[in-house]
Amino acid sequence: MKRTLAAHEVVPLALGAAVLGTGGGGDPYVGQLTLQREIERNGLPTIIDLADLDDDALVVPVAMGGAPVVGLEKLLSEPFADASLRRLERYMGRSADAVMPLEIGGINSLLPFVTSSRTGIPVVDADGMGRAFPTLDKTTFSILGLSASPVVTSNEHGDGAIIHCATNLKAELVSRAVLVELGAACSSTLFPMSGADARRTAIPGTVSLALSVGNAILAARARGDDPVSEIIAELARFDASIHARVLYGGKVIDVQRSFAGGFNSGHGRLRGTDGWRGEAEFSFQNEYSRIASDGELLAVVPDLIAFLDADTADPVTCETLRYSQRVRVLGISCSPILRSVAGLGACGPAAFGLGDAYRPIEVLSGLALQRAPRGAT
Amino acid sequence: MKRTLAAHEVVPLALGAAVLGTGGGGDPYVGQLTLQREIERNGLPTIIDLADLDDDALVVPVAMGGAPVVGLEKLLSEPFADASLRRLERYMGRSADAVMPLEIGGINSLLPFVTSSRTGIPVVDADGMGRAFPTLDKTTFSILGLSASPVVTSNEHGDGAIIHCATNLKAELVSRAVLVELGAACSSTLFPMSGADARRTAIPGTVSLALSVGNAILAARARGDDPVSEIIAELARFDASIHARVLYGGKVIDVQRSFAGGFNSGHGRLRGTDGWRGEAEFSFQNEYSRIASDGELLAVVPDLIAFLDADTADPVTCETLRYSQRVRVLGISCSPILRSVAGLGACGPAAFGLGDAYRPIEVLSGLALQRAPRGAT
Repeated sequence: MKRTLAAHEVVPLALGAAVLGTGGGGDPYVGQLTLQREIERNGLPTIIDLADLDDDALVVPVAMGGAPVVGLEKLLSEPFADASLRRLERYMGRSADAVMPLEIGGINSLLPFVTSSRTGIPVVDADGMGRAFPTLDKTTFSILGLSASPVVTSNEHGDGAIIHCATNLKAELVSRAVLVELGAACSSTLFPMSGADARRTAIPGTVSLALSVGNAILAARARGDDPVSEIIAELARFDASIHARVLYGGKVIDVQRSFAGGFNSGHGRLRGTDGWRGEAEFSFQNEYSRIASDGELLAVVPDLIAFLDADTADPVTCETLRYSQRVRVLGISCSPILRSVAGLGACGPAAFGLGDAYRPIEVLSGLALQRAPRGAT
Repeated sequence: MKRTLAAHEVVPLALGAAVLGTGGGGDPYVGQLTLQREIERNGLPTIIDLADLDDDALVVPVAMGGAPVVGLEKLLSEPFADASLRRLERYMGRSADAVMPLEIGGINSLLPFVTSSRTGIPVVDADGMGRAFPTLDKTTFSILGLSASPVVTSNEHGDGAIIHCATNLKAELVSRAVLVELGAACSSTLFPMSGADARRTAIPGTVSLALSVGNAILAARARGDDPVSEIIAELARFDASIHARVLYGGKVIDVQRSFAGGFNSGHGRLRGTDGWRGEAEFSFQNEYSRIASDGELLAVVPDLIAFLDADTADPVTCETLRYSQRVRVLGISCSPILRSVAGLGACGPAAFGLGDAYRPIEVLSGLALQRAPRGAT
């Protein structure tokens, strides 16, 4: 069934997607403003379920690639958002039947809706990560055997490239090299696939999930309840197999960043507040990838690690995190596909240069419980 | 008129092209072996004059891009040589009517003939530099306003990209980033153009010129004459406006190299032999770009600086130049297009990070004459 995204759903969608985006995917506020402007100009975007795609439909994941910090300074200009989709359609000699978020997180959850508003092409209620990740090989599409090629990438000056590679890892390297040269903030299409392949490989319902999480936060704020508890409750309501828990609460006492290779990478430390003991150290590569406290692992990729403002539960992106911010860190279990052998090979700790063996967050938080203040989880 | 390149012309073509290639374009011996093998398998390549192209013919410059030193270790595999041409043809939806060397120098003078032997498509007797240069903006095509896009580049694994950029400088940056990721030795097509544009922008007759220079060297060797003098005489016979002169003779006493960014860059020094006084210092970026002696400029880009073995006149490429080699350095005036304001902007000393003001070699060698040994020029 095709439905429209209502104008009042933009804010909760951006908010919920930013929680699931675990610090990456660009500033959700930028995406929200862009989408609101496009809706005013072109009308409401539409959403379609995976189940309603024709087997031979052309489904095109779209994303903005590059260092999110650059995206902050280069708002999505109008023709830029669908430049790569149009380039792909010309190249393939056929029109896209649907677009799909590559990932759930920040601008990249909203970009497909910008495209939908501008073109009338519906957005599939699904994505390839169930979260945000920095590289295209870290997708259920890639893990389940789809080719990312042709990867099409375009900047706001009309520059662009169509990339074909034998492996997705090579496609990632080549497209990243291209987007660094194109200004480090590009609209891209990748993994163009059939409706049948979309059903086989995408994580279903993640757009709806983001919307539910965003609505839960807004409702809790309106009622004066704790938004973080409401997020946890909403995740469980949406899918009982999702495990979510507060991992730590504290004040940012150190952040180190580098932008080498088009990534926003770094690490930092929190000092416990509100009863949380000791310190926690965290790492990120576009998204938060690891958190430990006094040497004890609390969560690690591919599980989700969301930094939320301690009072408002506003998601804090890796590029805006700053000294003295007070945050609560929410851990959420990832899609089972990412926990498969192939999934952990692509998205596990080693893929991020981390030395930890992967342990599911529900196992780790059982240990961590003993360290948490009463009532924290 | 279309004619064939005879099998016995491969050696002189490779030799002459390497002289005009001024140290760049890859090892001519590698190209020669590849072309000889392809001729045995597929038959003789054909050559066509600029004048015989239809106005609306599709003319496709082809080149191998990357660091020449990598090319030495990755011989051209069969499907690799025309992978980019085939990719371009599929993309444009039409067949190429002719290929053309992007530059005269080493492998890049021979690659179009490999393609011609394999495909039956003739090679235009012309090129876009009249020499070799490291980047695509340093071509008469670019200087006279043609777009390099789409640039198509492919490696031996089937990976490749089709790049469209608004400016040729951006196309160069993006395609170089791609080819570094693709293994630093790629077959490429660029500046696909009409026959009319080829006539307007290409330097005519440079394939024939390379062949004449190569034949002159071989003939001089057979007769026991000095090959370098014969090169100079042949250049003047071919085109009376070409100025050529021995700039220096000496032994290599230092070479410093780096391979940053996919270039083979460096500098070194010669100590004078055979009556040449003092020392000479030289620079290269894929090709020799500058030579001076005891602070006095002898030649600088875009004029041609060829390092030749002191005895055999075999061209010495930048990547094979080594300590204790004895060389004679031949200077040759470049195409007038490269000496225009736009030409010097693209190919002059500043474009290579050199501080010199450009002065034509015929002016400089007038000064240098006073320092040369009797009979050297």
